[in-house]
Amino acid sequence: MDNRNPIKDLVEQLSKLPGIGPKSAQRLSFFFLSLKKSKVLEFAEVLVDTREKIKYCDRCFNISFFNRCYICLDQDRFADKLCVVSEPKDIVALERTGQFKGHYHVLGGLISPIDGIHPEGLRIWELEERIRKDKVSEIIFALNPTIEGDATLLYLNKLLRHHHLNMSKLAHGLPMGADIDYTDEMTLQKAFMGRTSIS
Amino acid sequence: MDNRNPIKDLVEQLSKLPGIGPKSAQRLSFFFLSLKKSKVLEFAEVLVDTREKIKYCDRCFNISFFNRCYICLDQDRFADKLCVVSEPKDIVALERTGQFKGHYHVLGGLISPIDGIHPEGLRIWELEERIRKDKVSEIIFALNPTIEGDATLLYLNKLLRHHHLNMSKLAHGLPMGADIDYTDEMTLQKAFMGRTSIS
Repeated sequence: MDNRNPIKDLVEQLSKLPGIGPKSAQRLSFFFLSLKKSKVLEFAEVLVDTREKIKYCDRCFNISFFNRCYICLDQDRFADKLCVVSEPKDIVALERTGQFKGHYHVLGGLISPIDGIHPEGLRIWELEERIRKDKVSEIIFALNPTIEGDATLLYLNKLLRHHHLNMSKLAHGLPMGADIDYTDEMTLQKAFMGRTSIS
Repeated sequence: MDNRNPIKDLVEQLSKLPGIGPKSAQRLSFFFLSLKKSKVLEFAEVLVDTREKIKYCDRCFNISFFNRCYICLDQDRFADKLCVVSEPKDIVALERTGQFKGHYHVLGGLISPIDGIHPEGLRIWELEERIRKDKVSEIIFALNPTIEGDATLLYLNKLLRHHHLNMSKLAHGLPMGADIDYTDEMTLQKAFMGRTSIS
């Protein structure tokens, strides 16, 4: 225990969180000290409890309290339509749109040889297994428009071609509310190439 | 347990933290899920442990693991010089400068009738007690330059006048690296009024 700085350990732990610098960590520490002990305990319990209970759906690898996630258990969704994503958090974002009524498949990352992530490290074998078993007819790739996302897309497109599926990827272009003046060249280029008829 | 959104509780808890919006809370939640269970447990333990063990120094009301904080225990510091601050976090900032070798006194807030904080709610009685007991000769007020800070300063200045102490407050003026062009009028006014001779 360092009495010179009694909150040192807490600040250190908080500084490890993404997006939290030393200044914010100190601010958060003093906030926790200002809370009742019972509130801090409750916070810690929810944290540990959530981490303890959450597992991955054994079919699509979304996060879930049970062996099957709520999407895989939903009988009203189309099992022959798959949306392939990198991480479970992408599902949260996509579900918010209410656009897609099929199932998901979480790869668990994107191909990135620099970071040591090769195709074998992703859940691609499981994807092919599902394509066969669930008689999948359509795959939509919702992968980040980055080098890693594009590499993964290219790889999967080639690998899955022989299944003769309807494969597509999310459109690239201007985000809503964007300012053309401030948009980077790559995005503008994609927006041009993907222009849609208005007639 | 809400299987539709297994991280709902955690996101909710994290959203209550200052400076953490729903987006950051979700990002942090997924970060916690990506950690090993043991790491999350360690985090929670440090949090609860720190909150459990920290108390206030019974002399200056700084945060401390023991009844006396490290500043009050330091024999090399001058007990007759007091720096009056609003919160323990102000001590952290002031100590970083290494400018002050006296002791501190934490008021526990600033006078703010709108928020229901009156002089009786602050540790002013304890301050007078210390002035008497420790034979304090100098007081430096390090209070925020706000309406509340100024009101507290005014109140204390009047209250303590009869002790015939050397009382001062931190200087107001341009912060280092400031751009005069962008500085607000009040600060510039204070900088003018407090101009220092360069000869």
